[in-house]
Amino acid sequence: MSDAINLINEMGAKARQAASAMAKASTAQKNAALQHIADALIAGQAQLVEANQRDMQAARDKGLDAAMLDRLELTPARIEAMANGLRQIATLPDPVGALSETARQPSGLLIGKMRVPLGVIGIIYESRPNVTADAGALCLKSGNCAILRGGSESFHSSSAIVAMIRTGVAQAGLPEDAVQSVSTPDRAAVGALIAAEQWVDVIIPRGGKNLIQRISAEARVPVIKHLDGLCHVYIDAHADLSMAADVAFNAKTYRYGICGAMETLLVNREIRAQVLPDLIRRYRDHGVEVRGDEAVCALDSQVLPATSEDWATEYLAPVLSIKVVEDIQAAIAHINHYGSGHTDSIVTDSLAASEQFIREVDSSSVMVNAPTNFADGFEYGLGAEIGISTNRLHVRGPVGLEGLTTQKFVVRGDGQLRGVQ
Amino acid sequence: MSDAINLINEMGAKARQAASAMAKASTAQKNAALQHIADALIAGQAQLVEANQRDMQAARDKGLDAAMLDRLELTPARIEAMANGLRQIATLPDPVGALSETARQPSGLLIGKMRVPLGVIGIIYESRPNVTADAGALCLKSGNCAILRGGSESFHSSSAIVAMIRTGVAQAGLPEDAVQSVSTPDRAAVGALIAAEQWVDVIIPRGGKNLIQRISAEARVPVIKHLDGLCHVYIDAHADLSMAADVAFNAKTYRYGICGAMETLLVNREIRAQVLPDLIRRYRDHGVEVRGDEAVCALDSQVLPATSEDWATEYLAPVLSIKVVEDIQAAIAHINHYGSGHTDSIVTDSLAASEQFIREVDSSSVMVNAPTNFADGFEYGLGAEIGISTNRLHVRGPVGLEGLTTQKFVVRGDGQLRGVQ
Repeated sequence: MSDAINLINEMGAKARQAASAMAKASTAQKNAALQHIADALIAGQAQLVEANQRDMQAARDKGLDAAMLDRLELTPARIEAMANGLRQIATLPDPVGALSETARQPSGLLIGKMRVPLGVIGIIYESRPNVTADAGALCLKSGNCAILRGGSESFHSSSAIVAMIRTGVAQAGLPEDAVQSVSTPDRAAVGALIAAEQWVDVIIPRGGKNLIQRISAEARVPVIKHLDGLCHVYIDAHADLSMAADVAFNAKTYRYGICGAMETLLVNREIRAQVLPDLIRRYRDHGVEVRGDEAVCALDSQVLPATSEDWATEYLAPVLSIKVVEDIQAAIAHINHYGSGHTDSIVTDSLAASEQFIREVDSSSVMVNAPTNFADGFEYGLGAEIGISTNRLHVRGPVGLEGLTTQKFVVRGDGQLRGVQ
Repeated sequence: MSDAINLINEMGAKARQAASAMAKASTAQKNAALQHIADALIAGQAQLVEANQRDMQAARDKGLDAAMLDRLELTPARIEAMANGLRQIATLPDPVGALSETARQPSGLLIGKMRVPLGVIGIIYESRPNVTADAGALCLKSGNCAILRGGSESFHSSSAIVAMIRTGVAQAGLPEDAVQSVSTPDRAAVGALIAAEQWVDVIIPRGGKNLIQRISAEARVPVIKHLDGLCHVYIDAHADLSMAADVAFNAKTYRYGICGAMETLLVNREIRAQVLPDLIRRYRDHGVEVRGDEAVCALDSQVLPATSEDWATEYLAPVLSIKVVEDIQAAIAHINHYGSGHTDSIVTDSLAASEQFIREVDSSSVMVNAPTNFADGFEYGLGAEIGISTNRLHVRGPVGLEGLTTQKFVVRGDGQLRGVQ
């Protein structure tokens, strides 16, 4: 057996053991752990910055680009934000133990479902030290154990944070092995982690599409994954055109790099001339490059012709493709064909059109009269977000604490026997 | 590309296309389809029996054993039972379209979740023709498309049933490709089906453990699987001992071959002498072989000594292992160590003991004062059962129609913009 497999087996066995203690941990203990960790982050600020500077220096030496250095850096303000994030998670309702759907069955048995932790969660992420605290805290609050594997560039920062987490967990009387981090830079450890069906219940990769695709392709453990966010807004013929323009503008320009950003705007043929000329100018004034089909190009000479590749591209950049469609049917067909099933929105005043769109668009979020960038765990009232799932099974869309739990049936009787009247 | 992959790609594309029609099918249409199929099964009884006789003859020629021949056989009574099963599924509430958890968020957006079909479900099963009708009907009612792959021994029977299903579906105005069956005996088709991530959303294998393990090990598509049912009953020190004996007897003897049958009985040391001697005699009189640890053997000289292998064995037979445990803690530890996480029960009068057992036993069903054999979709009020899931993700325990659906977020606004006050 390779070293990596040995290491993961050892960590997995510890996590499995810690998982039973975590599953019965009280809400008060879990919240106390989160507060202890937050305190430790603040008290250990100087130490964290120092550890981070070692990572930063190594990253500069390796020639990492400015965006990566920025994601890697820990400043006092960022450490404070991490601590506040933990305290915020402590205030959220504990999903564990909630009973639902309890009903008396004909046999006389009282049967319901209880929320319980998933067990052991493997988190694989790139070099963002804040994910260490954030993901670790969400796993703790939901009663799970975490095995964290951060990018090697954040090794010193993440290790320092994990040490503080483990101390905080122990201070609350919980097993410190509830949070472990894979300490070897050996990439084989990732391979062993995602194959460890015996020890790990689910893998959540957080990072770029390449990372997530690689993990998904190789994993034996189920993966909660977030692939593309190729989101659409469709402006219906029966829409408040001023609202439609604002929603379409906001959906593209609020932030270009988020998965909920609109990438393609679909406009009903009937109202194209009323909406598009002004809206295209507004995008252009804001620095957004507009590409369009023939009908769009006919309305504005500066629009570049879109190729078929544009309809399938998640730009994550100030670029937008616009298409004129015959009717709502064509809009839905376009979305279900080219979209990624993430988030799609219709702007309409028609009840029938909104209901048809909601029913027929096969995406994890369907919206009416709102920009797609609202796809977010906090905006959805989940209180937290460990990611947005593009899976169909288990969780779909923004994932909060509940997505890190499962249910078990609880059956209460008073001596019922099967097959006996 | 192999023929098998070509075939599955072709079937998958057809299923995907049919899936969008099925997702928007009305409840009335789906119920009409089920009634049409039930009518066709009754009207075509003679034809079905004839097709089945061809399978039966081939199976006899191949020397299949009596149990397999019995599972394969279709009689008029069994065909009637299939038809009644379909009519029963037609009476169940339609899970699709149900909205839940709708709430107004601080942004003013009204956000909830809507149940929608999973999409395309691959069902792989052994040579039981009735599964063709049953699984097909559950997929239809939940708005999904099914790709069925039955055992080759039931080829003629299943093909005849699938033809009737497709006709019934078309009569209801739905796409007949909502239900397809893999017609080649080539085993490579199963491999292609379970790898077809593009076309198939979930695989449900139904059959023996070997089949399910093989499918799970090789699948790229998520699998809803049912592995072992190594179920326990624990008789607590504070229990109504007469009820305890009845529950323990029923848990073993109601049916030996079902996954909810008790395989190991745990008895608290304090009450062992009051419970076990009579109970062991009762098992013996009923033809159940009892194996026990030292403490049990000391109470009855005919009990065979249990080996450590016994605690890990799902007998599915009139054999039972009994262990005396120090306390509830030891019982829970034994269950979480040796059990399969299927169904476990405590018999107790103590509220504290029942709550501890419910909380700490990590199984898909935990029971109090009821035999484990109640683990069943019908007994749980699900109205139907496509199987019992031993997965932790998506569905756990008995799976009804709801387990064949997923949810999407529905977001309704009136022009809210993100990041704009």
